[in-house]
Amino acid sequence: MNVAINLAQKLATFSDHFAPRTVATLNDLDIMVVKIKGEFQWHSHGDTDDFFLVLHGRMRVETEHGHAELGPGDLFVVPRGVRHRPVADDECHVLLIEPTGTPNSGDATTAAPRQEI
Amino acid sequence: MNVAINLAQKLATFSDHFAPRTVATLNDLDIMVVKIKGEFQWHSHGDTDDFFLVLHGRMRVETEHGHAELGPGDLFVVPRGVRHRPVADDECHVLLIEPTGTPNSGDATTAAPRQEI
Repeated sequence: MNVAINLAQKLATFSDHFAPRTVATLNDLDIMVVKIKGEFQWHSHGDTDDFFLVLHGRMRVETEHGHAELGPGDLFVVPRGVRHRPVADDECHVLLIEPTGTPNSGDATTAAPRQEI
Repeated sequence: MNVAINLAQKLATFSDHFAPRTVATLNDLDIMVVKIKGEFQWHSHGDTDDFFLVLHGRMRVETEHGHAELGPGDLFVVPRGVRHRPVADDECHVLLIEPTGTPNSGDATTAAPRQEI
């Protein structure tokens, strides 16, 4: 239990996009890494904020209120209930934090399944 | 509200050690940056896990069960109730996540005050 989790090593184990992997938990939250490229669907989470921290590359969080541009070391929290979508022109690696069970698409019927690595 | 938070810029605004700054909130959690150098006191949090992600430098999380060595891009979650202390031989910059109001020392009477930047 006393081994640190290296995020780059975790990211090297998969290549699909918009399919988050849970690398740790913090109370009732999943700590996840994800690779994104292209445009995700517009969605919102009525019951939780949505945390993004860019680890590698660049992305944009488009929201109903405007757009945030993120590079490495930039974080952005989408408030609960705000419609948004992540967009990346080139592949971008991101740390995500959401309560375990939160559908990444905002809809359980279209959400990526929870995957732990 | 659509501006990303750059962690390096936030870290450049202060120089004291073991004095976390809250840069964002996620539901009921504080997202904090901190500079550490030297040994912090042994402590535990009975009601929350404790999240560390190294942004710059190297540190060690010593726990009652062993030690984890962390460099940039390494994260470690100390389970609730586990006694631990962060240690850094040289200055290390860390992202912390804890429920708002969690005393960083495990004891409200000795905790650093909450500071937002």
